[in-house]
Amino acid sequence: MAADVTETVPEAPWWGWAPQGPDGGLPEGVRRVLRERFGGELPGGTAPVPAAEAVLPDPTLSSEALAALIAAVNPGADGPGGGPSQGSGGSVSQRSEDRLRHAAGKHTPDLLRQRAGRPLAAPDAVVRPASTAVIPAILAACVTHRVAVVPFGGGTSVVGGVAPLRGSQHAVIALDLTGLAALRGLNETDRTATFEAGIRGPALEAALASRGFTLGHLPQSHQQATLGGYAATRSAGQASTGYGAIADLITGIRIETPTGALALGGRGPASAAGPDLRHLVIGSEGTLGVITEVTVAVRPRPTQKAYGSWAFPSFAAGAEAVRALAQLGLPGDLPEVCRLSDEEETGLTLAQSVSTGTKLLRRWLEMRGIHTPALLLGVWEGTTTRVRGRRGRAAKILRRYGGVPTTGIPAAAWDDGRFGAPRLRDELLTVGVFVDTLETAAPWSRLDTTHRAVVAAIRGALEVGGGEAGSAQPSSAASSPAPSSPAAVQGHVSHVYRDGASLYFTFIAAAETDPIAQYNRVKRAANAAILAQGATITHHHAVGTEHAAMLEDEIGSVGVRVLRAARAEVDPTGIMNPGKLLGDGNT
Amino acid sequence: MAADVTETVPEAPWWGWAPQGPDGGLPEGVRRVLRERFGGELPGGTAPVPAAEAVLPDPTLSSEALAALIAAVNPGADGPGGGPSQGSGGSVSQRSEDRLRHAAGKHTPDLLRQRAGRPLAAPDAVVRPASTAVIPAILAACVTHRVAVVPFGGGTSVVGGVAPLRGSQHAVIALDLTGLAALRGLNETDRTATFEAGIRGPALEAALASRGFTLGHLPQSHQQATLGGYAATRSAGQASTGYGAIADLITGIRIETPTGALALGGRGPASAAGPDLRHLVIGSEGTLGVITEVTVAVRPRPTQKAYGSWAFPSFAAGAEAVRALAQLGLPGDLPEVCRLSDEEETGLTLAQSVSTGTKLLRRWLEMRGIHTPALLLGVWEGTTTRVRGRRGRAAKILRRYGGVPTTGIPAAAWDDGRFGAPRLRDELLTVGVFVDTLETAAPWSRLDTTHRAVVAAIRGALEVGGGEAGSAQPSSAASSPAPSSPAAVQGHVSHVYRDGASLYFTFIAAAETDPIAQYNRVKRAANAAILAQGATITHHHAVGTEHAAMLEDEIGSVGVRVLRAARAEVDPTGIMNPGKLLGDGNT
Repeated sequence: MAADVTETVPEAPWWGWAPQGPDGGLPEGVRRVLRERFGGELPGGTAPVPAAEAVLPDPTLSSEALAALIAAVNPGADGPGGGPSQGSGGSVSQRSEDRLRHAAGKHTPDLLRQRAGRPLAAPDAVVRPASTAVIPAILAACVTHRVAVVPFGGGTSVVGGVAPLRGSQHAVIALDLTGLAALRGLNETDRTATFEAGIRGPALEAALASRGFTLGHLPQSHQQATLGGYAATRSAGQASTGYGAIADLITGIRIETPTGALALGGRGPASAAGPDLRHLVIGSEGTLGVITEVTVAVRPRPTQKAYGSWAFPSFAAGAEAVRALAQLGLPGDLPEVCRLSDEEETGLTLAQSVSTGTKLLRRWLEMRGIHTPALLLGVWEGTTTRVRGRRGRAAKILRRYGGVPTTGIPAAAWDDGRFGAPRLRDELLTVGVFVDTLETAAPWSRLDTTHRAVVAAIRGALEVGGGEAGSAQPSSAASSPAPSSPAAVQGHVSHVYRDGASLYFTFIAAAETDPIAQYNRVKRAANAAILAQGATITHHHAVGTEHAAMLEDEIGSVGVRVLRAARAEVDPTGIMNPGKLLGDGNT
Repeated sequence: MAADVTETVPEAPWWGWAPQGPDGGLPEGVRRVLRERFGGELPGGTAPVPAAEAVLPDPTLSSEALAALIAAVNPGADGPGGGPSQGSGGSVSQRSEDRLRHAAGKHTPDLLRQRAGRPLAAPDAVVRPASTAVIPAILAACVTHRVAVVPFGGGTSVVGGVAPLRGSQHAVIALDLTGLAALRGLNETDRTATFEAGIRGPALEAALASRGFTLGHLPQSHQQATLGGYAATRSAGQASTGYGAIADLITGIRIETPTGALALGGRGPASAAGPDLRHLVIGSEGTLGVITEVTVAVRPRPTQKAYGSWAFPSFAAGAEAVRALAQLGLPGDLPEVCRLSDEEETGLTLAQSVSTGTKLLRRWLEMRGIHTPALLLGVWEGTTTRVRGRRGRAAKILRRYGGVPTTGIPAAAWDDGRFGAPRLRDELLTVGVFVDTLETAAPWSRLDTTHRAVVAAIRGALEVGGGEAGSAQPSSAASSPAPSSPAAVQGHVSHVYRDGASLYFTFIAAAETDPIAQYNRVKRAANAAILAQGATITHHHAVGTEHAAMLEDEIGSVGVRVLRAARAEVDPTGIMNPGKLLGDGNT
């Protein structure tokens, strides 16, 4: 059964993704594959420390700043009569649990620190507005008292996007926006919906589903992430091949900057009235202001799905077939979800299953000369039976390019478990297995070489001794880990365009003594390979602190200057999310 | 026969659009309709004055500035050995003919001044680089000598985008980029092509056609306009419903600013590395720098076309049908060209023909209760017979929404004459008929009311006495024209989106004594109606000088501040196209 996109889940714990529960633990298939790969038992690791053992720095927020924030969040308390106001119900918390929960995103190095109870930083307070109307006053208080503001939605950043950095300010708050989650309006004629930015994926889909619509933006973080976070990070979802990425879906957006509101869009489906500033806000990662309201294009909720899977003799052959589908087919031929796994990822996926079906599939492919298959999964969805016609037309093109049909079962299985991978990471870290992902995108003409180069770089960095490479990293100074043999370096395409595709890599190895140094070593090698190939440093994970040093490679020094100038104009004192996107120099 | 998109035409004359030729003159059908509308003979007007009678201001360029520009354009002349250099072949001209030709765009008030030999301004020199490599040196010379730079492509702006304004500088040059017209590369795998920005529409399509590709961006200005101009003005074409507007087609863009180059895109089909600065450059109208190179997505050149036309009982009914097509159909159902004329436009189009076919069509529609039809034209194109299947699926939806099929003939006839309207304007001005167009876009939910409101505003402004309304306009101070009765105020939708559509208006009346005052009165009334409806001030004609005062209505004061800050960062002395986009305050 396909995952329910309206299903809400408990808030993620401070040390990872999944709530620990009775059904936790590593799936047996994964455990077996890893044992085979490691040539024996799993390395063994540790569980997260209890919250009480987590070491938090003392808050540095002055009492004046605290009082100003409390007044800003609850203007009614100071108002005549003290009655409820538009902003009532907001809060300012300095409780450890709140600070801990807002101390980091879900970057693997973040989680490693959090699990060990050693967060490197924490916000001095967590501010929860109950109305978008109070946000200008909160920002004004922060300007006056020199407090940095980290807009905080689902907290799922994997690039340090919500790290509680002060920049040049005296203190830092996390501005938790998840209380601002209302559907402000749904225009069924225009098929647009306006939401407060703090709404999470499942609540957004539930609100739309009750009226027969969907946004269709479903990144792996969907169950925790917020619409504002999608916009801030220029997010793409698992079905972006069909629905478009968030930048394609946003028709209007409003941010509160420290010097006024910027409200864009809504006047028509398109405009030639100068540059499209929506694209300056989308991807601005909270450095210009707080995204408070987003209007998105919505579609009828799909009632029909068609699944299909095809095996190719190699990743390169599969990529050629997907390119043909994108370029020769009509737009409707491409499935909403289009994922092509490389040989390694396909092998590991198949190895997790011991079912008769999987064995038969292997034999069927062997008979057709496909020994190391690369599997393509497609999900077509819509409101009419035309989804099956679309699949049929796509199948014709895919078969012409060497695809061997393997039923829809693998695609349907993927659809069932589509939001599960982050939970798996928690379980792997618990048993001492180091796992992370990174992504890029490349034009078709360089896709295969980029794929090979990045896989080789990651593999090389995992296999090489860590002592020397890690010596530049503060976190690795304490240890000199033995080189680790990678269990897997695998990749896939999951976002398909006419001119190229995304590339997503997962790497799995035994954790070294200092896994953060291990991470840094791998990431540095991968980044260098990506840049050497002329590919983008991130397709959908954003910049944060992680890629800030590479931004100039991407947009040049003039591009960086333009972003700095825009930021300086709207946030002259540099309170907005310091250290992200533009790095330390952005204040 | 459909218009040949690779057909090159002579450069437009300085006073209008069409080259005067033996086959000039007003088509008889148009002449007859106008006579009927005016209730007698055409008002009568005047031909453009000979070039020798045009009054040009004396150039203000200093001899030092002139020498610096000559050195910058032809660096080889100063180099060792004086041999040919990368930039050789460029020129700096102060000839009257060159200055006259670069004195204005194709805005109706521009043309009225030009035809009367009273250009209000002219560039002090026309600089023609022969290589993009010399552009940084040209800009440096302009910064040193305080010379404003107007990037000049096809010169087809209808919003004053190439007006030779000095801003705070001592002089102004037109930087004519039409010599920079090379195809730099065509990547058949990625289906992207990189051009120098000065290439005109037909040359661009011819270069692609020889390799089997098309861009498919075909505004009415196609035969004169350049790719750089498309990018600078955030252009949309007649087939943008199918191919996307220029902002959708540009995958990479390079501009030279006075403080360095900004090269964007090319690293992959998408990126989350911060804001997408391409969208800051697209629509920047030369205020940030000179667009030198543009990479665009290309498609196989269409070999199959399918035409279809449907009549609706009203414009509102037709708009509902088009909305259904955009929202219920698959992307491929929408035709590449989708035009819905209102009742007035349909009536005038049909009235131009006295053929038996047109008479039969009218009777056929009358029998079906359609007395004032609104006609929808569709052109589907592609490389396979699937275009006919697409038309068939669209027809099903259109019929369900009340569309009466009227054969493909009207759509094919439109395709034949698709680039002809600007020439018609020249002929109308010559016989004393005042004609112009303006456009907006609105969400579906406000499309019909916006259409009605703008038509009423234009009609009202034409019918009302001009003396009082025109008194605020300097150009009308000398005369007190009699109120004019409009010959026609007609509208159509020509760009269709899921959430709304464009609206394009044409108004035709007897020219008043001061037709510029007449224009200003109409335009002011239309703008007020557009803003009151919450629609955009321009869908595809850009801002220029014409809409600069309305930019703040569109993007707010914070938006304007951000654009000013970006400009100040890359062009601190304000040489780039002063007075456009941001108005007089942009330097």
